[in-house]
Amino acid sequence: MRSIRVPLGTRSYSIAVDRGVLSRVGAACARLKLGRRCLVVTDSNVGPRYAAAVEQSLADAGFDPRRITVPAGEPAKRLATAARCYDACAAHRLERDSFIVALGGGVVGDLAGFVAATYLRSIPFIQLPTTLLAQVDSSVGGKTAVNLRAGKNLVGAFHQPRWVGCDIDALRTLPEREFRSGLAEVVKYGIISDAPLFRRLERDLERLLERQTGVLGPVIARCCAIKADVIARDENESGPRAVLNFGHTIGHGLEVISRYGRYLHGEAVSVGMVAASALSVPFAGLEETEFERIRALLHRAGLPTDARLTPRQWERLVAAMRLDKKVRRGELQFVLAERIGKAIWGRQLPARLIARVLDPATLWRRPAPPARNR
Amino acid sequence: MRSIRVPLGTRSYSIAVDRGVLSRVGAACARLKLGRRCLVVTDSNVGPRYAAAVEQSLADAGFDPRRITVPAGEPAKRLATAARCYDACAAHRLERDSFIVALGGGVVGDLAGFVAATYLRSIPFIQLPTTLLAQVDSSVGGKTAVNLRAGKNLVGAFHQPRWVGCDIDALRTLPEREFRSGLAEVVKYGIISDAPLFRRLERDLERLLERQTGVLGPVIARCCAIKADVIARDENESGPRAVLNFGHTIGHGLEVISRYGRYLHGEAVSVGMVAASALSVPFAGLEETEFERIRALLHRAGLPTDARLTPRQWERLVAAMRLDKKVRRGELQFVLAERIGKAIWGRQLPARLIARVLDPATLWRRPAPPARNR
Repeated sequence: MRSIRVPLGTRSYSIAVDRGVLSRVGAACARLKLGRRCLVVTDSNVGPRYAAAVEQSLADAGFDPRRITVPAGEPAKRLATAARCYDACAAHRLERDSFIVALGGGVVGDLAGFVAATYLRSIPFIQLPTTLLAQVDSSVGGKTAVNLRAGKNLVGAFHQPRWVGCDIDALRTLPEREFRSGLAEVVKYGIISDAPLFRRLERDLERLLERQTGVLGPVIARCCAIKADVIARDENESGPRAVLNFGHTIGHGLEVISRYGRYLHGEAVSVGMVAASALSVPFAGLEETEFERIRALLHRAGLPTDARLTPRQWERLVAAMRLDKKVRRGELQFVLAERIGKAIWGRQLPARLIARVLDPATLWRRPAPPARNR
Repeated sequence: MRSIRVPLGTRSYSIAVDRGVLSRVGAACARLKLGRRCLVVTDSNVGPRYAAAVEQSLADAGFDPRRITVPAGEPAKRLATAARCYDACAAHRLERDSFIVALGGGVVGDLAGFVAATYLRSIPFIQLPTTLLAQVDSSVGGKTAVNLRAGKNLVGAFHQPRWVGCDIDALRTLPEREFRSGLAEVVKYGIISDAPLFRRLERDLERLLERQTGVLGPVIARCCAIKADVIARDENESGPRAVLNFGHTIGHGLEVISRYGRYLHGEAVSVGMVAASALSVPFAGLEETEFERIRALLHRAGLPTDARLTPRQWERLVAAMRLDKKVRRGELQFVLAERIGKAIWGRQLPARLIARVLDPATLWRRPAPPARNR
């Protein structure tokens, strides 16, 4: 078992990465001295597979779990679903030391975390991420949210979990497309801060795609450690934490204009990372060869590296990006890569400059080099 | 002008108590160096009277305000109304340094504060309380919330305002019943921590009821100073802040079982304070004469001091109190008064003991002294 500590003072917590973690959650909660009542929030895909084992583990440790099952998929991550969860909290009489267990992917974690952040002005919660994406990214760091029609994650709160349990066994039943989507975030960690990790991915990609436990475990743990390190330096995203958003400005925009329907999160981020890397060549000095390595790795992982957009969709994409939480004074903010292993944040790029580098019809590079800025 | 500082480190802020404060809000926001865009959240009673002056003041100081008007009254304090406010934030493209201005009573302040706490995972907000209750209580301290059907304020967040402006002139147009409701919280401050304030209220009640500015200003400022002092010692209600809930366990319960329809908040709290004072005689040593002074002052202020309940309503009241955020492990928690000017918190009283002191049919004392605890 690998255990990673997220050092945030009184809000510190551990991430366990191992096989069989789901059936050990009760013992972990007992060590945290949480109240007896808890609500397990899960979705219609994950619940039938794993909720019974989680509840058994909780009951064996003396807890009194109830379950609420929300529909699987991003559309469930909205206020109306949070309202159903609040009603379940009230019906089960959760108190301030009661807790919520988020069992599922990023949608369940973000939603259940937001409910925990706001029910009774915050109660503890536990993350049990069952997708690769949630294990390496969304379950760690305390960002919780629901979507509005106007944009993704526009409503939310910072609320750190009390424990995160990443069960590698749970990844076995993950659909292929979901697994590959998670790899996009894994690749991101290599780009933003760990060149050796990036090289390891280039070398071991096939074994990762086969979900070999011996490769998966260390990679997941390494991603969690990078994220823990970043958020320890910037819990509430006032600065350095922004590097975690590499590829996300355009990625979120794509999700918004397709109404969270066409792309999985990692797929949209993959397109966004290729676009951000393309922008990094002229605006951050990324080597052309490194841009090609990034694009090639994502392509090998079966992830999309461009998008087909009509002029109207491009306009809507720019409008959606302006609504992003990271926008300041109307300027689009980008995270760019100086090289594989080193990202910089807070670069403001006006939409017209972006359109000189990226072809608005594909989000891919224009065939000709960008015109010089007069 | 009286200015009270709420000392909370990086979250410190000032409360201004004065006449004409509403038309000086722009200058205050400029001093805080907030972003240009803001959303004024107000209600259908207050908006038509005061929003134009507030917006003019903001525009004169260079800000770009938009307005959203929610229905007046407690029923608006729910998730569906928050959802409308979020959509307005998105439509006006609020960014992380944009801000929300809450212009109205406690409902508007709690609702708009919750929206500010959660939009983009929190943006700044300004409180412009226009009721006595909001000026002395709900606008200060950072508690924000919306109600669920299952209970009042069950969903919320701690989020401190950046500035509070109490305009005494705004109290002139307050309906009589609302004004008296606010006096309940004023009396509360006397009971929990300021015997001289309580005596001043006994002496000056008539002039207060006439809303004489020279009496109102110092009283409001004193209440704010007491509240500032309490929350500086316990921002997130882990302990001492609980004294502010004197009368609120039963008061909240009454509001819940009447579906927030029959009682104004202060009226429910008035009944709750008389009940808590009655419980304080046997359980905290409150002198009988002081109990009578409390009851008499509330009665002179035109506030209800008992309630008529059917046995079924009493059962529902107890059930509602058990859902209160202050409940731990199923036990009802009470704040009691040892004497006028001194409250104690965290007293657990089982429902059966309460029913020995209070007549469940009136929430008034039983005619006979309580049976001894065997």
